[in-house]
Amino acid sequence: MTKASFDVVGIGNAIVDVIAHAEEDFLEREKLVKGTMALIDAARAEALYQMMGPAIESSGGSAGNTMAGLASLGGKGAYIGKVRDDLLGQVFRHDITAIGVRFDSPAAASGPPTARCLILVTADGQRTMNTYLGACVELGPADIDPEIVSAAEITYLEGFLFDPPQAQEGFRKAAGIAHAAGRQVALSLSDPFCVERHRAAFRDLVGGHVDILFANEAEICSLYETDDFDKAAAEVRGHVAIAALTRSAAGSVIFAPGAAHRIAAAPVERVVDTTGAGDLYASGFLYGLTRNLPLPICGELGSLCAAEIISHFGARPEVKLSELVAQRGRG
Amino acid sequence: MTKASFDVVGIGNAIVDVIAHAEEDFLEREKLVKGTMALIDAARAEALYQMMGPAIESSGGSAGNTMAGLASLGGKGAYIGKVRDDLLGQVFRHDITAIGVRFDSPAAASGPPTARCLILVTADGQRTMNTYLGACVELGPADIDPEIVSAAEITYLEGFLFDPPQAQEGFRKAAGIAHAAGRQVALSLSDPFCVERHRAAFRDLVGGHVDILFANEAEICSLYETDDFDKAAAEVRGHVAIAALTRSAAGSVIFAPGAAHRIAAAPVERVVDTTGAGDLYASGFLYGLTRNLPLPICGELGSLCAAEIISHFGARPEVKLSELVAQRGRG
Repeated sequence: MTKASFDVVGIGNAIVDVIAHAEEDFLEREKLVKGTMALIDAARAEALYQMMGPAIESSGGSAGNTMAGLASLGGKGAYIGKVRDDLLGQVFRHDITAIGVRFDSPAAASGPPTARCLILVTADGQRTMNTYLGACVELGPADIDPEIVSAAEITYLEGFLFDPPQAQEGFRKAAGIAHAAGRQVALSLSDPFCVERHRAAFRDLVGGHVDILFANEAEICSLYETDDFDKAAAEVRGHVAIAALTRSAAGSVIFAPGAAHRIAAAPVERVVDTTGAGDLYASGFLYGLTRNLPLPICGELGSLCAAEIISHFGARPEVKLSELVAQRGRG
Repeated sequence: MTKASFDVVGIGNAIVDVIAHAEEDFLEREKLVKGTMALIDAARAEALYQMMGPAIESSGGSAGNTMAGLASLGGKGAYIGKVRDDLLGQVFRHDITAIGVRFDSPAAASGPPTARCLILVTADGQRTMNTYLGACVELGPADIDPEIVSAAEITYLEGFLFDPPQAQEGFRKAAGIAHAAGRQVALSLSDPFCVERHRAAFRDLVGGHVDILFANEAEICSLYETDDFDKAAAEVRGHVAIAALTRSAAGSVIFAPGAAHRIAAAPVERVVDTTGAGDLYASGFLYGLTRNLPLPICGELGSLCAAEIISHFGARPEVKLSELVAQRGRG
């Protein structure tokens, strides 16, 4: 096995976030389930945008956020995802490239526009996401660059990628290439409804192709159709080498063969917007893992990065995470 | 004089801000003067964007920010400015409309795209702005809707509007309509370099058409070509009914016939990005003025709104300012 040129390659939906405050009764009126992600079509995206309050735009996408976080920590990342050759596509490419992530996937020259996610943030800091997939539906096996995947120590896939029609096939191709090259495959379950939509495919993957799994309580419970976190955790330990299960303010639990580590959440002065918390936890964790740090340190790095992202609007870091880590003595 | 339907109509450059962190040496290398605004062309905008770090996009424009702040306080505002019928134009219109400001100016169907301002924020929270005026150059006298201007208690003009070629004429038209309807005219000097570019025209206006003037130290000193703030202040008192002069962390001084009020800056936990500080000071001040509050209270409202805006990225309020004011007992 040759030395990896990238610590991680992330494969995901390339999305620009449109973030606004919303009242609880707006969610209720529009039948939006707080804390989850709903897929919407172009007409609904337009209608919802018209009803939303003033917004800010910020590059997003779960795996995109994770890779931006990894780069901000000083890691070497690459990204595979599909934008259109439009203004939002340029914005997405600018932001991920500017932070130091390699992003070579060509923009689509026709078809739907670059994806956007309308994110409603309630006063409690919770985010409710409404994704118009746009150009992401074009992502397929042909976009999985074997050279990049085989050159990355870890191939990281976001669960949301199971929604665009041809992406599952792309994922299986990526996992195959990664394992053939002696690399590892990580998966994030992304959202309980996403797990519900694709439960069989997810179980198949987790059982046969995934080495490192990220999930929160709702997602892991949805995967194994139980309300009991401990049961779900016991189940997943039989399938993956490492499972990092996040529990919001209660921190995270990391399971590895013969070991379980409980990690506290890092303190946050004020939770402004929880968008990207899981994505940035994965940044810190994967950064630690690719530096061969002990698992509890990987978890602490994840907590620290998640704490930064929820202290402001948007899911991309506002400070250099490597400096934040150095300040906390974890450099 | 009939009762005004609007508290304030703002006339300005309709701009979307693109905000990123930058190091001091980046400013130096690119010959950018910290804390000021430079006009750039499309090619320079593209080149600078490529060199900038990851960014967030937020609707801006000085008078646009002021009107958004006024609406967030509960005031009735209208806005006149020029966007193109493109994505950024839709974003600008969405944001200002969603916060409750009337914005009827039609989008240009041809010509340059919607304006953008590349804003570099250094570690000290200072912002350095680079504006590509785009569609703003199309704004002219024909865009000044006499019905709206005569229906507003105060017509508020941003000094930046002196840069697009036909806008000065539009401003004189607006001032004429406002005064003929028995209304007041307010002007913000916007930027010391902007004053330098248009000093004669500014002096002519301040001397003959302006009732309420907003300026910071650098701007008022540039207007009267002096380094002495007290001299500049003495000079301006002879020309306008009210002058609100802001001094960053030192607060502001309000001059009126026979009176001078010193107002402290409102406390800020951490200055993140000073973009919009002057704009939001004007929001609070004008809100107070149109409610016939005493001038020192107008100044305090200005300080409070400015403090909110500099505590986060972007120049549009992130909380409902009316609630902020109520919490501080100034409702």
